[in-house]
Amino acid sequence: MKAPVRWQKPLLLRPRDTVHVVAPAGPFDRAGFEAGLALIAQRYSPLHGSELFESHRYLAGEDRLRRDGLSRALLDARARAVFCARGGYGAMRLLPELPLADMAPTALVGFSDITALHLALQARGRVSIHGPVLTQLGRQPADVHERLFRLLESPEPPPPLTGSATYVPGVAEGRLMGGNLSLLTRLLGTPFLPALDGAVLLLEDVGERPYRLDRMWTHLRLAGVFERVRGLVLGDFNECEEKNATYSSADVLRSLAEETGLPCAAGFPIGHGALNQPVPLGTAVRLDAAEARLTFLEGAVSE
Amino acid sequence: MKAPVRWQKPLLLRPRDTVHVVAPAGPFDRAGFEAGLALIAQRYSPLHGSELFESHRYLAGEDRLRRDGLSRALLDARARAVFCARGGYGAMRLLPELPLADMAPTALVGFSDITALHLALQARGRVSIHGPVLTQLGRQPADVHERLFRLLESPEPPPPLTGSATYVPGVAEGRLMGGNLSLLTRLLGTPFLPALDGAVLLLEDVGERPYRLDRMWTHLRLAGVFERVRGLVLGDFNECEEKNATYSSADVLRSLAEETGLPCAAGFPIGHGALNQPVPLGTAVRLDAAEARLTFLEGAVSE
Repeated sequence: MKAPVRWQKPLLLRPRDTVHVVAPAGPFDRAGFEAGLALIAQRYSPLHGSELFESHRYLAGEDRLRRDGLSRALLDARARAVFCARGGYGAMRLLPELPLADMAPTALVGFSDITALHLALQARGRVSIHGPVLTQLGRQPADVHERLFRLLESPEPPPPLTGSATYVPGVAEGRLMGGNLSLLTRLLGTPFLPALDGAVLLLEDVGERPYRLDRMWTHLRLAGVFERVRGLVLGDFNECEEKNATYSSADVLRSLAEETGLPCAAGFPIGHGALNQPVPLGTAVRLDAAEARLTFLEGAVSE
Repeated sequence: MKAPVRWQKPLLLRPRDTVHVVAPAGPFDRAGFEAGLALIAQRYSPLHGSELFESHRYLAGEDRLRRDGLSRALLDARARAVFCARGGYGAMRLLPELPLADMAPTALVGFSDITALHLALQARGRVSIHGPVLTQLGRQPADVHERLFRLLESPEPPPPLTGSATYVPGVAEGRLMGGNLSLLTRLLGTPFLPALDGAVLLLEDVGERPYRLDRMWTHLRLAGVFERVRGLVLGDFNECEEKNATYSSADVLRSLAEETGLPCAAGFPIGHGALNQPVPLGTAVRLDAAEARLTFLEGAVSE
């Protein structure tokens, strides 16, 4: 978990630029996918291989197919972005054989299971975009689409985001890293996790019972992560409630955050909810936890 | 993850010996607990503190209470065994502050979430017993009780166990380590995982969907575990089926085992099923995967 030598941003996009669509994780619903694809096709020129619609158990085709499609997209010097069709599960299976060292200056867009790819990019000092997958994009409101296009096309920092709760007041500055809590913990003890030293850590998840949130959070604690990061930004934790419980997932997350003593605000519109506002990973941010405000000090792309 | 200098076994038990009962993880049903307690009280003299029946969310009381109860039990030089009331979740929360370096030569008995304690003991070269928790013990048949008492009281190896399927034929010898797959993966990247080099790895789990089994298994792969261990012993994987799926959890586990190329047999009567046969962790075993047979080369206790 060494710090990368220097950070590198993707090149900015212009309307009609070539972009790739990949499916490195789970199989997906065709209608939701087409809605998202239509949205990006209004602005860019998307390409994808015929293997995109393959299905093998809980995967969008066998490893070789998914890996070849993703590798081809990452290496294409003509393309400016790589949009992920869906999360689910399966990206981390591909990590050992991806051509990350040779990839083009292209912007990877996705979240949830795609966190495995984001983290592997962060380990190599690459900026990427935590934002909707195509099956989610069509259900998101216009301001999410606009924020995504702006992030891809402008080197300016995006507007700040506001959360709904302060768990531990305080201010933290650092590079925004992380994403999905499950996937982050699944790279602990592997060569694919970035150093995380000095980072502001983004965490979101879906469908995890409170004791499982505690177990994953405790995994981060025992691995020393909370001694290395400077602040915590919590996105949505949907469908994380225990039936008939006297406590909520928010109660549990608040207790866990208090144990770390790190500045922490929650309820940011990031993750599996109705709003999944895109944010640049690997860029400098400022968290003011008392105000539940996340300010972006850099954009995601360079000219 | 250094190899321990030398391995140490608990001292053998004799009828009427003092034993402790602890609840380091989740709260539990009183009736099931009393049935298990009555069984061990027929043979030994069990002690427990009044804090045993506390409850805090999904934990059997707050960390301090559970840690104090467990620490007192582990340090008691008069006692010969420590029986866990139940698994669930919570043992790993206590790991950084347990007096493992100073513990008495006592036999820890439990499984599932208790795997966190077993692994931390293995990291210090301590033999322990993967076997029923008290809430499960009363539902187990007499031959499980007899095997447990024999393991605790005799330095001889226990009888071999037989599985139901060969996933990868081959023979492996090494120390038996591991236990619950979820908990094993939750210690990756932490100081509480034993070295695992040369081990025969035991894995079991309950209530994990096939893609989650794959995700945990892939975590072990990315962390290099399958390059270090010599063989794989799969116990029960109950309630691990996906609704309406064309594949079973056994299909998925077989594929994952084949990817490792390690000798692997499945269906051993170990885990959350009707039979949870106790086995000594940290002792030498021989797996003949073609015969689905696990032979024990040592007992769990010393004179």
